[in-house]
Amino acid sequence: MPRQNAPLLVFDVNETLSDMSPLQSRFAEIGAPPHLFHLWFAGVLRDGFALTAAGAFSDFSAVAREGVRALLSSAPEWSGDIEQAAGHVVDGLSHLEVHPDVPDGIRALRERGFRLVTMTNGSSDLSKRLLGRAGLADCFESHLDASGPQRWKPAQAAYQYVVEQVGVRLDEAVLVAVHPWDVDGAQRAGLGGAWLRRDAADYPQVMLPPTYTVGNLRELAETLA
Amino acid sequence: MPRQNAPLLVFDVNETLSDMSPLQSRFAEIGAPPHLFHLWFAGVLRDGFALTAAGAFSDFSAVAREGVRALLSSAPEWSGDIEQAAGHVVDGLSHLEVHPDVPDGIRALRERGFRLVTMTNGSSDLSKRLLGRAGLADCFESHLDASGPQRWKPAQAAYQYVVEQVGVRLDEAVLVAVHPWDVDGAQRAGLGGAWLRRDAADYPQVMLPPTYTVGNLRELAETLA
Repeated sequence: MPRQNAPLLVFDVNETLSDMSPLQSRFAEIGAPPHLFHLWFAGVLRDGFALTAAGAFSDFSAVAREGVRALLSSAPEWSGDIEQAAGHVVDGLSHLEVHPDVPDGIRALRERGFRLVTMTNGSSDLSKRLLGRAGLADCFESHLDASGPQRWKPAQAAYQYVVEQVGVRLDEAVLVAVHPWDVDGAQRAGLGGAWLRRDAADYPQVMLPPTYTVGNLRELAETLA
Repeated sequence: MPRQNAPLLVFDVNETLSDMSPLQSRFAEIGAPPHLFHLWFAGVLRDGFALTAAGAFSDFSAVAREGVRALLSSAPEWSGDIEQAAGHVVDGLSHLEVHPDVPDGIRALRERGFRLVTMTNGSSDLSKRLLGRAGLADCFESHLDASGPQRWKPAQAAYQYVVEQVGVRLDEAVLVAVHPWDVDGAQRAGLGGAWLRRDAADYPQVMLPPTYTVGNLRELAETLA
């Protein structure tokens, strides 16, 4: 039962709920250095945000595929079937698991009466399946993605879309993410922001400081209680 | 003497005119793997574009510094003075040289009567010094940067700012860049776009195809003649 005045918690999915590190093995499996995973993911966000800044939109999986192609076609030592390789990496997004702190943390938040939704630049279908595999399907009331507003986070329209879908005001929602750019964007749009540190670096000074800073999702449940 | 009806050519600077590969040595000099350069630069653009997509602005050098800090503070094997290391990498931006095709290509374009300006998400002062070191100071009529519109490319406002400063219409200008996101953004804003391939990958299908595709700047002079 939702608690009166408890904020709506809007969860980012990629890296915030899902552990993306198995994608490093996917790079190894296509014959590329595993550390290319990090460059690939930064490049996918760079290109998706560039399209967003220019007022455009493209599907995450299409940008993700182009990202693998670009990396492999400019890697002089790599040879192989580039379409097959791009497909193998992107397919890995469908087989991720949640971080170890997620099941207990999410259940604790749900028990404390928070309403929970996901909002991803990826696919709401993959979010739903990820959380289903973790036995958390009944904890979230909906899974939203950037295809609704046709804008990636951190564009204001993406956060606006979430609160409209759920029927709350902007200041009744808190975005939870490991990525500072998402926390920053949510706060500029008028939501609260909870930065999930896990084992991450310091929060960048060029972005708005988070409303809440927590080490993991159990700590978030305690902080917001 | 500018030719009647010749388009204004708007040059991106980082990687388009400047060869940024010496920054790999800067990473080696601070005790980090040289390949971190690529991850750093992708992350700087990711974070700068995120701020842009969220309607905000930060100075390039500040985002660049935060990018080094974030990488080093999450690299378990790295130890050292993080501020000094960030400063050493960012200082490298002041000591770059132009790509080998730039001097002849720029002179050929100037001789053919094109008006040339630079527009960078970095610093116009660094653009000016880079081109001065290459003996090309007199080829460009001005050096512009994102601090003017308080928006990074590829936001429409950044391209609009350039044509207003120079006094041409959007469709009288062509953006020249190695980065597809810049070509795409310029074209969405109403300029032409020239994609400089050099030895780059294929152009991504999620972005608007370039008006012109050339291998280097000499080829651009021939293509536009």
